[in-house]
Amino acid sequence: MKMFKSDNTASVHPLIMAKLAEVNIGHADPYGYDPVCLEGEKKIQALFGTDCFVSYVLNGTGANVIGLSTIVKPFQGVICADTSHINEDECGAFERYTGAKLLTVPHKNGKITPDMIRHHLHALGNEHHSQPKVISISQLTEWGTAYTLEELKTLADFAHENGLLLHVDGARIANAVESLRVTFKEMITDTGVDVLSFGGAKNGMMYGEAIVSFHQSSAVDLKYSRKQGMQLMSKMRYIAAQYSAMLEDDLWQTNAANANARMAQLYRGIKDISAIKVVEIPEGNMLFVKLPLSWIKSLLKTHYFYPMTEEGSVGMVRLVTSFDTKEGEVAQLVADVLTLSKQ
Amino acid sequence: MKMFKSDNTASVHPLIMAKLAEVNIGHADPYGYDPVCLEGEKKIQALFGTDCFVSYVLNGTGANVIGLSTIVKPFQGVICADTSHINEDECGAFERYTGAKLLTVPHKNGKITPDMIRHHLHALGNEHHSQPKVISISQLTEWGTAYTLEELKTLADFAHENGLLLHVDGARIANAVESLRVTFKEMITDTGVDVLSFGGAKNGMMYGEAIVSFHQSSAVDLKYSRKQGMQLMSKMRYIAAQYSAMLEDDLWQTNAANANARMAQLYRGIKDISAIKVVEIPEGNMLFVKLPLSWIKSLLKTHYFYPMTEEGSVGMVRLVTSFDTKEGEVAQLVADVLTLSKQ
Amino acid sequence: MKMFKSDNTASVHPLIMAKLAEVNIGHADPYGYDPVCLEGEKKIQALFGTDCFVSYVLNGTGANVIGLSTIVKPFQGVICADTSHINEDECGAFERYTGAKLLTVPHKNGKITPDMIRHHLHALGNEHHSQPKVISISQLTEWGTAYTLEELKTLADFAHENGLLLHVDGARIANAVESLRVTFKEMITDTGVDVLSFGGAKNGMMYGEAIVSFHQSSAVDLKYSRKQGMQLMSKMRYIAAQYSAMLEDDLWQTNAANANARMAQLYRGIKDISAIKVVEIPEGNMLFVKLPLSWIKSLLKTHYFYPMTEEGSVGMVRLVTSFDTKEGEVAQLVADVLTLSKQ
Amino acid sequence: MKMFKSDNTASVHPLIMAKLAEVNIGHADPYGYDPVCLEGEKKIQALFGTDCFVSYVLNGTGANVIGLSTIVKPFQGVICADTSHINEDECGAFERYTGAKLLTVPHKNGKITPDMIRHHLHALGNEHHSQPKVISISQLTEWGTAYTLEELKTLADFAHENGLLLHVDGARIANAVESLRVTFKEMITDTGVDVLSFGGAKNGMMYGEAIVSFHQSSAVDLKYSRKQGMQLMSKMRYIAAQYSAMLEDDLWQTNAANANARMAQLYRGIKDISAIKVVEIPEGNMLFVKLPLSWIKSLLKTHYFYPMTEEGSVGMVRLVTSFDTKEGEVAQLVADVLTLSKQ
Repeated sequence: MKMFKSDNTASVHPLIMAKLAEVNIGHADPYGYDPVCLEGEKKIQALFGTDCFVSYVLNGTGANVIGLSTIVKPFQGVICADTSHINEDECGAFERYTGAKLLTVPHKNGKITPDMIRHHLHALGNEHHSQPKVISISQLTEWGTAYTLEELKTLADFAHENGLLLHVDGARIANAVESLRVTFKEMITDTGVDVLSFGGAKNGMMYGEAIVSFHQSSAVDLKYSRKQGMQLMSKMRYIAAQYSAMLEDDLWQTNAANANARMAQLYRGIKDISAIKVVEIPEGNMLFVKLPLSWIKSLLKTHYFYPMTEEGSVGMVRLVTSFDTKEGEVAQLVADVLTLSKQ
Repeated sequence: MKMFKSDNTASVHPLIMAKLAEVNIGHADPYGYDPVCLEGEKKIQALFGTDCFVSYVLNGTGANVIGLSTIVKPFQGVICADTSHINEDECGAFERYTGAKLLTVPHKNGKITPDMIRHHLHALGNEHHSQPKVISISQLTEWGTAYTLEELKTLADFAHENGLLLHVDGARIANAVESLRVTFKEMITDTGVDVLSFGGAKNGMMYGEAIVSFHQSSAVDLKYSRKQGMQLMSKMRYIAAQYSAMLEDDLWQTNAANANARMAQLYRGIKDISAIKVVEIPEGNMLFVKLPLSWIKSLLKTHYFYPMTEEGSVGMVRLVTSFDTKEGEVAQLVADVLTLSKQ
Repeated sequence: MKMFKSDNTASVHPLIMAKLAEVNIGHADPYGYDPVCLEGEKKIQALFGTDCFVSYVLNGTGANVIGLSTIVKPFQGVICADTSHINEDECGAFERYTGAKLLTVPHKNGKITPDMIRHHLHALGNEHHSQPKVISISQLTEWGTAYTLEELKTLADFAHENGLLLHVDGARIANAVESLRVTFKEMITDTGVDVLSFGGAKNGMMYGEAIVSFHQSSAVDLKYSRKQGMQLMSKMRYIAAQYSAMLEDDLWQTNAANANARMAQLYRGIKDISAIKVVEIPEGNMLFVKLPLSWIKSLLKTHYFYPMTEEGSVGMVRLVTSFDTKEGEVAQLVADVLTLSKQ
Repeated sequence: MKMFKSDNTASVHPLIMAKLAEVNIGHADPYGYDPVCLEGEKKIQALFGTDCFVSYVLNGTGANVIGLSTIVKPFQGVICADTSHINEDECGAFERYTGAKLLTVPHKNGKITPDMIRHHLHALGNEHHSQPKVISISQLTEWGTAYTLEELKTLADFAHENGLLLHVDGARIANAVESLRVTFKEMITDTGVDVLSFGGAKNGMMYGEAIVSFHQSSAVDLKYSRKQGMQLMSKMRYIAAQYSAMLEDDLWQTNAANANARMAQLYRGIKDISAIKVVEIPEGNMLFVKLPLSWIKSLLKTHYFYPMTEEGSVGMVRLVTSFDTKEGEVAQLVADVLTLSKQ
């Protein structure tokens, strides 16, 4: 049985498991100072086409918070969409660890733009207000959309012109890169992103994440903040090995392509049903739709997904496809929805 | 020359100064363990009609943050208006000291209501979200309005029914009490407020604030959090003395009454000018109005007030009266505005 | 090649790897709400013979800090040996995350006793001092010794009589349990420990740790603090599975027994060499010895271990055996030392 | 009745009170942006003979913590004597606000030297350890001694040679300057101190402290950290005025000279009594002596001082003189001690 709840309900890709077994030989220096970690780092640098700084951490919240901790002081602020994961879904991890403030703005299609951000700059120099220092976005966004290269570059330029930095929460970065048919280098390095949370667990890995920093002067702090932030593990080679496997023969792409294709199949199957309201056209592997409550109740008997229960969101469901979602599984879900639509 | 910028531009009331001189005799135990502090505490308890817990601190931000720190854990959240002082004007002090999160809601007339708050309760029990624990409001609000006793009681009841507590930022509490013609006991104790920041500097004191807690189980932590929060001073009697002076012969009321009366005079004088847009009818000593930019420029030559410069607020000015604002000073400002309106 | 640097240089035990493969089937609810996690929890509860609260986290620092965070307020303090891992080797993680203070005392044989701690109690009730609330010890200690059951009970009783709690950093708890030939229940549950960091990575696991709390009233906060502390992972079943494997057929004991036996072999082999000074008789799998500097230089050519370089510790080396250390490997090290001793 | 408990039990010097009245005229811009604040700043800069950065705060703990917060990152550490005020008497304020660690060393005569500190440098570059960044000392020390200019310069040079900074807690800096018969410039500016907490409340002020920073690149953060640290007050002119008064006609020196002279009188009077053990020869206004317990009990009937109660310190008392301690008051205490010594 497959779930459409989230891409983190999936198991681990067999090639990742094979790689874990492959590096499970003998002793190695702990804490990242071993050949497997170095190999992973070199592969990631090759992917981004530059000698970026790579710091493995344990999970997505860790990547976001530790990465941001090196570029924001406690009296500064991070501008982000009100829907961003760091604001909505990390139980205040950012605030507690960094002591800094999230300066939220309402999103549009999950995205934010310079025009939506600019009013926060009036606070610059006024000690009564947290000083804006970073813009943080998610790619894919929390609404399943993808910033275009132009949108990314515009945000990065706006940030840099105003003395700010650009951070990207890339929990689903592979889905975005695959969706736009570009390279990681084009999407991240060339647009001017400063720090990226390079996710993997939602694309077939078991655990682990990589902070990729293009902001060399702050990157030297990463190793200390990672340790103080409880994100350093002893047997680090088992995270690096997973990244190595993901970057061999473009496994990241194979996985993301399947998830995206299954989402496209799902979207095509239900988009013309009049009782369904699609919130945003999916650009990756995530879709929000509004359904009649009775349909949700019926579908939950044989399918697993996340019905939103917040006030104002009743009737909304989130559907996510994974690297291992099968064509037939999507077809079954579509068929069941169609059946409901004809009753 | 008087300012209409804020009630914290005023000097110190002569009776407060006299009291400071009066207690300036001989040695006394430091850190609040002296007779002057005890006397102040007893007067405050009498004012609220109950044996509330009194903790003197150094300033308003300190009162808000230390008071809240005893009733919120780091993984919890404080629901407040987006315009609240703790969110907008304290440079992230709350987040840094408590590690907890502010859960903001858009205000209406500076106020928030249960209906505007309720959606935050969906997060209860879900570890991905900061757990709502406190509702914090300002009385007067940041928009110069005052919650009625009914509104306060409704909020307190809603909070308690849902396992939350009610905190009041009372930087201008005296102006609110005077405006509603009630007592402190009726406004705070009887409505069910749990913790109050009892301000004084905006009503004629030199410095110092009092945290007044009605939540006995958490109040025992106040003395430790006050010290750790850098809000304990050695010669504490000089804060207590100011509160004693404020509560003698109702000096707090005399001061607030003057500030409120001068604001009423100002409002009456300009409210019918068609080019002026009053944001909220002032219920205390603070008024926001929108004026033509040319008028602002002209008025700033001889008057001192705060023109807002944030995007969307251009043309808005904040006018605040103080305990020492003179009738003639308001009359002059009104006359100058009227002159501009006739050009 | 095997290392004697640390027990975290080892690879992952084959049975752990097999278990990871075994649970790598299909989708499962994330964040710990799946059958594999429940099974692991039940096994751990059985091990301790009580319905303790189990919270999986990502690493040892996470276990220590998150576990302590639920039983200490920021203005309180944790009494610990100056050599403790939380004080010396976690880059200030405890202080940053909890805001509280470590109250260190000099150790004896790596251990602390009520007599060494008692003077910290004078601070109780005095707001100028962090309020002692927890005693934290390591078992094995950082010097390779093991507290006896009597010593543990004495500490727990002392703590409870004074309103404190007892926390145990059990990074090497299996080695201690095996060394004393007791059960986990006897060592932890029955002595009165309140919170335990139940380590596994040093005994053959890949990653992950379990906080085991016997202090029910604070345990409810664990799930929130774990998330806020960046220690919640989505695919949690892969941590739980490792614990399940460790507790099947007493794998934990097999592993610890080998590590301890190899250390005993090593100790027997070198203890009578006059030029070597053994710091503490090893009671688990860790040994500190002082060697001539020339020997260290020579041994490092073919063996891997950690020579201490701190002032006052020059000439000291730490030797640690692992679940996979072979008898012949130890024999070779002993032989090489003996050769040096005869030159 | 005068106390020998602490110099913060004294009242406020009449010239300070007069100055507060003098500036209590009309309105002024809040938060430090007024002429009185500027005047105070210029006087302080003149005192130190350089354009140092001056930031008024509310109390001594605030000065220490906010000052340090601008020169230490959370993963770094501050080396200090175990007896230092920031370590022993501020309830963990430093740790909570900065997230960083205090790296304590045992003191000698209240002082620390490079030789006592050097071993902490082995941690540099190792992410498992808080990175040493600041050396913090107190002048006067907590044991009533004063670092000589040579000792200060040696510490500053050692710090700078190793990439560290030197912070001075100057709660009793005036007593030290007066004791050594040097200038503030010679003691602080010329020796190479980076950040000073310039205290006043223990030398006749009512409240307030000044952070004086000679480290220009970090000083720009002071205004933000002061606000976020709850140490900004609205009517700031009343702190600045006190500093102005202290620096007019060398009031600081008059006050410190009296306190020091009275301590010298006290010391001369009792030093030769055989039953009394003087801990350190007082170099300012503070003395620790060990007395028979029966004497302490007897003296406490008519004198007020602080008997230490920590284990190991029983029988020790702290005696402090103030700006307003009278010759006759000291004579009476000496006489009473002499009487006891003859019984």
